[in-house]
Formats: sequence, C-alpha cells, structure tokens
Amino acid sequence: MPTGNYANQRYSQLKQITSENVAKLQVAWTFSTGVLRGHEGGPLVIGDVMYVHAPFPNTVFALDLNNDGKILWKYEPKQDPSVIPVMCCDTVNRGVAYADGMIFLHQADTTLVALGAKTGKIVWSVKNGDPSKGETGTSAPVVVKDKVLAGISGAEFGVRGHLTAYDMKTGKRVWRAYSTGPDNEMLVSPQKTTELGNAIGENSSLKTWEGDQWKIGGGSTWGWYSYDPELNLIYYGTANPSTWNPVQRPGDNKWSMTIFARDPDTGMAKWAYQMTPHDQWDYDGINEMILTDQNIGGKQRKMLVHFDRNGFGYTLDRETGELLVAEKYDPAVNWATKIDMEKNSKMYGRPLVDEKYAPGSKGENVNYTGVCPAALGTKDQQPASYSPETGLFYVPTNHVCMDYEPFRVSYTAGQPYVGATLSMYPPKGESHMGNFIAWDATKGKIVWSNPEPFSVWSGALSTAGGVVFYGTLEGYLKAVDAKTGKELYKFKTPSGIIGNVTAYEHKGKQYVAVLSGVGGWAGIGLAAGLTDPHAGLGAVGGYAALSNYTSLGGTLTVFALPG
Amino acid sequence: MPTGNYANQRYSQLKQITSENVAKLQVAWTFSTGVLRGHEGGPLVIGDVMYVHAPFPNTVFALDLNNDGKILWKYEPKQDPSVIPVMCCDTVNRGVAYADGMIFLHQADTTLVALGAKTGKIVWSVKNGDPSKGETGTSAPVVVKDKVLAGISGAEFGVRGHLTAYDMKTGKRVWRAYSTGPDNEMLVSPQKTTELGNAIGENSSLKTWEGDQWKIGGGSTWGWYSYDPELNLIYYGTANPSTWNPVQRPGDNKWSMTIFARDPDTGMAKWAYQMTPHDQWDYDGINEMILTDQNIGGKQRKMLVHFDRNGFGYTLDRETGELLVAEKYDPAVNWATKIDMEKNSKMYGRPLVDEKYAPGSKGENVNYTGVCPAALGTKDQQPASYSPETGLFYVPTNHVCMDYEPFRVSYTAGQPYVGATLSMYPPKGESHMGNFIAWDATKGKIVWSNPEPFSVWSGALSTAGGVVFYGTLEGYLKAVDAKTGKELYKFKTPSGIIGNVTAYEHKGKQYVAVLSGVGGWAGIGLAAGLTDPHAGLGAVGGYAALSNYTSLGGTLTVFALPG
Repeated sequence: MPTGNYANQRYSQLKQITSENVAKLQVAWTFSTGVLRGHEGGPLVIGDVMYVHAPFPNTVFALDLNNDGKILWKYEPKQDPSVIPVMCCDTVNRGVAYADGMIFLHQADTTLVALGAKTGKIVWSVKNGDPSKGETGTSAPVVVKDKVLAGISGAEFGVRGHLTAYDMKTGKRVWRAYSTGPDNEMLVSPQKTTELGNAIGENSSLKTWEGDQWKIGGGSTWGWYSYDPELNLIYYGTANPSTWNPVQRPGDNKWSMTIFARDPDTGMAKWAYQMTPHDQWDYDGINEMILTDQNIGGKQRKMLVHFDRNGFGYTLDRETGELLVAEKYDPAVNWATKIDMEKNSKMYGRPLVDEKYAPGSKGENVNYTGVCPAALGTKDQQPASYSPETGLFYVPTNHVCMDYEPFRVSYTAGQPYVGATLSMYPPKGESHMGNFIAWDATKGKIVWSNPEPFSVWSGALSTAGGVVFYGTLEGYLKAVDAKTGKELYKFKTPSGIIGNVTAYEHKGKQYVAVLSGVGGWAGIGLAAGLTDPHAGLGAVGGYAALSNYTSLGGTLTVFALPG
Repeated sequence: MPTGNYANQRYSQLKQITSENVAKLQVAWTFSTGVLRGHEGGPLVIGDVMYVHAPFPNTVFALDLNNDGKILWKYEPKQDPSVIPVMCCDTVNRGVAYADGMIFLHQADTTLVALGAKTGKIVWSVKNGDPSKGETGTSAPVVVKDKVLAGISGAEFGVRGHLTAYDMKTGKRVWRAYSTGPDNEMLVSPQKTTELGNAIGENSSLKTWEGDQWKIGGGSTWGWYSYDPELNLIYYGTANPSTWNPVQRPGDNKWSMTIFARDPDTGMAKWAYQMTPHDQWDYDGINEMILTDQNIGGKQRKMLVHFDRNGFGYTLDRETGELLVAEKYDPAVNWATKIDMEKNSKMYGRPLVDEKYAPGSKGENVNYTGVCPAALGTKDQQPASYSPETGLFYVPTNHVCMDYEPFRVSYTAGQPYVGATLSMYPPKGESHMGNFIAWDATKGKIVWSNPEPFSVWSGALSTAGGVVFYGTLEGYLKAVDAKTGKELYKFKTPSGIIGNVTAYEHKGKQYVAVLSGVGGWAGIGLAAGLTDPHAGLGAVGGYAALSNYTSLGGTLTVFALPG
C-alpha cells in the first residue's frame, strides 16, 4: 500500500540509503504521466511492477521495473470533464491500492474501479457518488480484509460525507457510514459509541444542526484511512461542515471535523472525537491518523497521532479514544489558546477559541484578519511520517495565516457552497510559508523545525537509513537527517512536488521515487492559471510567487545510489 | 545560437565529458515547461541565463543558472488556438535566437517577436504570415548580421513559401524571397543565379508549373539556415510542392525541393539546386545545410553537406553550388537508383527514379507500395552534427518505408491540401525504424550505423570529448563513441525525445541538456491522441508501438559529471 503499512507510518525499512551516503543520490530514471496539474499521492510497487497514477483523467500506468519502466498497460478512463469545475482544489488524485491481484482506483467522477493488476482490464466498477451534486473522488482507496474503503470529496459543494465499504471481489456495497444525520445512517450506537469515554447518546448529529442542514452538511472523507488489525478498527477523519459561513449553521455540526474509529466489518463506530466543533475556519479534519505504540509518562500506549488542519497535534488512545496530548505544532497558531485537557471541565477536549480570530463571532460580512493558521491549515493532505527508530513524527507543514470574511450563500446542487472569501499570507513579520518539523507526540513538542519558503505540500518518508525525505513546492526533493533535520541532499525535479515520497527495493537495490507536478490547493494558482492573488478560496495568495520557481508538470523521478 | 555556430555543425568544443567518463553522467537538474506535446529544438544558454521554449503556446522561460534554474521571466504569448489545426505535424517550435540583448521567437501564429533578453518584454513584433491561409511558424529564427531571418511552414496547406529578413533593431521587413513565382519575387537573377554552374534563365519557376499553381505551390522554409561569413552567403532548403498528389501539378515545380544560396544583405540568390524535381513522395527539402572545409580527392573544398528527406546525402561546393557527392545514406532507399553525376548527361544532378516506387506514375487512386523512404524521409527536421575532430557527420535517421496513394484534392485557403493517403512501416523483413549513423561526406559512405527501434527524431551533438549524444523516441538520451558508435551511456528521460541535444559550460563545468516531450510527425499519434495506425498523414503507422514506451511530456533534463 502507498502508506507502507496500515498504521500509515510511511516508514521504509530499507537502509541502503543512509544519512552518510544520501548526498551521492542520483536520478535513476524518470517517467512523464502525460498529464499536467497537481500530482498528489505516489507510485505503488508490487513485485516487479510499478503503478503510477495521474490527476484527471486519472490515467494509471503499469511500468515494468525489469525493463526501464516500459509501459505494460495503461488505463485511461473516459470521464465527463464537467467534473473538473466541481473539484474544489485542483484535479488531484491520491493514488491506487492493491490487493488480491487487483488495482483499485477512485476516479474523479467517483467511479471506483477494480483493474486486473496484470492486464489493466476492468474487473468491476461501481459509482460511489454523484458529481452533479458536487461529489468527487480524489482519495486513494484502502483495502481492509475483504473490503475496499472509499470516501468522498465535496464539502465545498454541500455534499453529505460518507465512508463506504465495497466487497473487494464484486464491488457490491457492504456498508456506508454518513458523517451527519440519523444514527442508523451514521452507523453509530447512541449507547456503545463513545466520545472521550461517554456514550454519544441519541441523535448526536441531528441535534447539532438547524433543521435539515445536516443533509448538505459536508463532513467529507477524502483522507488516508488507517487500520489496527488487532483492535479490528479503522480510523479516519471527517471534513469541514458546509457552508464555510459559520453564521448560517449554528451548533456543533456533528460529526464534521471528527476522528472516527469504526469496525471495518460492520462500519459501526466504536468511538468518535470532534476536534473543531462548529468550524469557523475550514479546519477540515480529514488528515491521516498514524498509529504507533509509544510510552507516555511511563505507560505504554496504543497511540493514534493526528496533525489537524487546526494546528493542533493530537495524541489519542486508539482503543478508547481517550485524549492524551493536544498541542500546537506551529507556534503561529492563534485561533485557540489551547485544547481544554481538564477532564472535569465542561469544555473538556474542546478548543478554547479566541473570539478575535473566530470568523462569524461578530456576524457576517466582517473581515477577520490575522487568523492563524489559514483555511488550508497547519497541515493539509500532505501525509506525515513516523520513524520507529527515532520515535519522532516528520510533519510537512504550512506556516500561513489568513483574512476570512464569511458571507451568506444559498445552496444549489453542484454549485460551490462556500460562503467566505479569504486571502492567505505568511505570519506577520515572517516571509516563509512552511516548515518541515520533527514532532514528539508523547510530549506534544517540536524537536526541530526547518523553514521552507512555501508550504511543504508533499508527503514525507522516513527510512531505516536514518534519512527523512520530502518534496517542496519549488520542486526540490530533499533528504534530511532524521535526528537533527540537517539537510543532506536536494535535487530540483521538473515541477513543484505535492506527491508523497516512496521507497522500494528492486533486484536488491533501494530506490526512492516521487511525483512532481505542482498544483493542489497551494498550487491551484499555477494549476488553474489563476494570477489574481485574491481569487477563489484565497487560492493564490502568498503562493503567487511560486510561478518564479516552477511550472506545471507531471513526472515521476526515481532516485538511487550510483552503481 | 542553438546550432553552436553558423556552419550548423552542432559541435561543442567542451571536453570535460569524454568517452572515458561519460558513463558516470548524472542528472543535474530538471525543468518542466508546463506544456505537453512535441518539444523540438533545444535550450539556448547566453551567459548565466538559459532560455527554454515550448510548443504552442510557445512559452519562453529565462532560467537563472546561478540559482538552480529559478525563473527570471516567462513570456507566454496569447495566440488564437485556431492555429493548432493548421499545424501539419504537431504544435512544435524549434527554438529561439539571441542577438544584441534580444531573444527572437517565431510563434505558431507567425508573429516574429523580439524580447528583451533581460526582461522578457516585447521590443518589437511583426506578422510573418497568415495562419488563415495555413501559414504557421515552427522554425527557429536565425540572426545574420543586422537581420533576423524567418521562414514559414504550411506546404500541406498550399502556402507559397518564403524566407524573409527583418531588421534586427526595428522588425522592419528588409527583403522577402519566395520559393516559387516570378523572378523578381523570388529574388533570383536569370543571368547571375546558377544551378549546377548554368544560369537559371528567365521565369525559371513559372515555366515549371501549370497555370497559377505556383501561387499555392508550397516550398515552405522551416529548416535551419546556415551562413558563411566569408562568402557572405546564407543557405537553406525549400519544402515539398503542394499538393502531395503529383498528378495534379505537372512539371518540375521549381523551386520547391531546392537548396538556395543567397546574399543575406539583399536576399538575391547566387545559386540554387533542386534535389527532387516534381516531387512524388513529399521529400521536403528543408533539412539543414552543414558547412565544413574538407578534402575531397586531394582537393580542399568549401563543402555544404545536406541529408535530404529523399535519402541521399549531398555534398556540394558551397561557393559555386557544384555537386560533389550524392549517395544514399540508408541502403533501404529505393525510389531512385542514384543521382546522375554525369556532367554531360541531360539528367545531370537529377535522381534516376524507379517508376515502380513513383506515386502518380500510373495515375491517381493507385496505391504505390513499398516505397522507401516514407514521406517523412530518411531524415526529417532532426539536425545532424559534424565533428571536425573525426571529420564525420552524425545523422539521426528514419528507416521507414510507405504505401502512398495520391488522390485529387481541391484547394481551399486554410484547409489541408494534401491529396495522398499513406501508411508507414519498417523496410520489408526488418523491425527497427531508425538508425543513428556516422557518415563520411567526402566519400558518401556510412562509417558505422546503430539500429534504433524507432526513428531517431532528436538532433545530435558531437563534442570535443569524443562523444556524440542523441535522443530516442522512447525517451533515452544516449552517448556513443564518436569513432566507433559504441554506446557508452543511456538515461531514460520523462518522455520521448525529439529535441536537439545541447552542451554548455557554466562556472567552469560542462553540462549537456535536452528537452523531452514526444510528438512531432513521428510522435503525432501520441501527441494528438490518435490511435488508428492509418489515420492522417500515415501519422501513426509503425510508431503506434511508441505508446508502450512513453507518454506526453515537456521536460528539460540537464546532465553533468558528479562533483
């Protein structure tokens, strides 16, 4: 799987490439996908074959690693291009999954397709959503046991988020868990499903929305899903509530902005934890959950670590959902002073919000300035990595603030349902817009932090060689020392990197691979040809300067040591 | 200039990279142009700045070599995309020229533009043609003295070819020499302009066409122009006559298919030589002229060497236009047995055509099969290289034959005026479609020949290090030994290579650079998404298999030795 393991650690046990020799890294070979715009995700190597995917139209290639990447097959779905304008943040796709001789792809038009891994022929195909309502597919499917899990994108279009399990062999839908709505449609038990140790009670979602708003309430599910086979629980986050104008949707808007732990067989939720009740910032909660077993205060814990868009790094007990640590992983974060950790407090587990930085607190059509982080969060989709050797998390971050002005918007199916304008820029007095950090999740502390001119929008990889890799929006693949953060190597790939770094072994040799192709939310200005720094979702903002560094692209670059 | 010198030798005096160490070559950095489809031409390095161009929309980038290729400026012309369907053979552009602090670009829409080399701002701009009549710009301008020379593409649309000189400082047109028509419009002198030593006489073009056909008679001028400062002569070739159906245009169709030697100050022709009178194959004569001084039969000659589409390698005296050598540079060539070299023969200098392989000889709507080379010739635009060290020419070739069926077509301005269907395939009993050869132009002999699975559609570079570089349609950059042809290095770039390899020095270090981005005529199937092997101008044919090796792209890859 692209994440390396079900724990989502993005850690490679390969150790030919070490902190001592990584400076000698070379480009081994390259491959163009034939598609421009944002290339998120990364390649997947199964045996001697590498599977490479692309943004819309979501071409998938099977490349022969024994033959310089010769194309064994190519799958290019015919998709209605009308889906493109309902993709909020570029035409990205985060990759494919493999199981049982099949490659699984979730297309932009929400077709979930199983392809023969050897042939590229369609084994089965199912529709997971409806693009005419703004539902799109951007996430990588994840296979757990005999099921393929697929989420949905579209919280900027008023979709009603859901996670769905399909039978791996037939594509038949087994269960669907909505993020909002009646208990039975959410697959929650009023008595057995808990939040912070307490039963969630009846109609836990319905009573946090005004009227029928939950039907267009967002809470999409486009992140990476993790799985603990021993506990038989899957973990994922839900996105922002719709619309972005908080004044229009009073209440906690459950279960948007929530970490869910569910039984993969039935979909039933064991526990839930809402990080940002009544979101006023678009601090979408889909970022991945990383599962580790570490010692906190002398006690070994089954941890779940999550770097939320809202700027807090959360550590929970993944068995019970108990909140262990919640600290800012960027000192610029100012929308909340802290997460209340007092178990007896009425606010337990909730952020203590600074009203000054809370859009909507003074009503609509007011510009709330200097809010940190910006809507794209201290971290967005770019996955973090965990090294069991150092016990540290390596987190690609955004160091960005915003002005946010909510306004009234009405819902029309398939039309943007945003209701806010924003502009984004670095924190006051600073000029860099990103940091690549090492994080101790047992303490909630930054161990080291490397500034980057732009957001680090690429997924990190840590390796047993003591090296951590990540990409930058200007296009550099960088290797740093896992212990100190010292930069050991950099190489300028053809385009900005928003893909996730992968390592693999072929014929006894270690390779490192990454897709370049600038885009995604941070690169949408370049990807969609926008030049107005204030256009769209604060789309361009401080990222406008990216056009001084890179252009659109779509290339896989594979690295290896010489010889 | 991209050709290295006015002699068009594409030879670099740099010698850090040698046949001994080239196997250690590494990728130094890469850059995506943000454009897909065929990337012909190559980058131009002036001081510390590299200028990179792209196919339509013809973006030009100035990259800072002191700062990892940071974008100093970007020029992206707004061009009417209606020009795309009138580009016969992909949306290619062969690059820019530099002189006097300006970068000159000939856009697809025939706008010739001078840009400040430091700013990217337009200094002047002039229209060189009319796309509504099928005239397009694909060639690189060449600056000679105080003039910018620009040709025109469109012989598949019945244009009337011309070469035009513009004042370098103002863009004002100084002279225009048509390829067909009245003597005064062609800038030829009936008495002083010679062919093979004889005055061409009055109305030399008009009397070789039926009626007004010369007005839509082709003879476009999209190749590389060379210049001998001592003789004060420029050299270039003219393209095929329009239409491709020879039955429709009786006569020699002068001066299509012709090498011209002209005075750059006045445009007046000193001599001309028509290689393929009354073309029946689309053996377009625009391929570059390479100027060398070599010894033939004990006599030092001012040579002009030209590898024509028709499969003959010509050596002429560039002062007089005397024909010295004309031999096949691919043994598969069968449309003519030889070029008549008997000075007293009525056929002197003309090909002795084999009627069996002469489309139209038995009328229209007859399929002429097994004709070698195919319409794209034994060599097309891909420039050859000459090494003064070895005295050899390095020629990227096509090893392709065709079936050709002429049919009647009527002329409509701006519509294809082709009048033939064809399909292309390797010579009978063979499976490879290209060779990279070394050629002795004093004798007309192949010295060595390396087979390639596909046409070698990339321009070659020879260097003082004894290495010759070229690219392949699958995407390999290859380095071979200049003396023996032995392959010393190969690297798989992101996409198929149809660009020209360039070498440059920066801060005392030698670099080699090439654009990848499959397309051009040979790659049009991939570039334009055609899948029918018999579609268009035999467009896909045997090249359909290319899709097993590569995808569209647009990336500059820069190589260097380690350290």
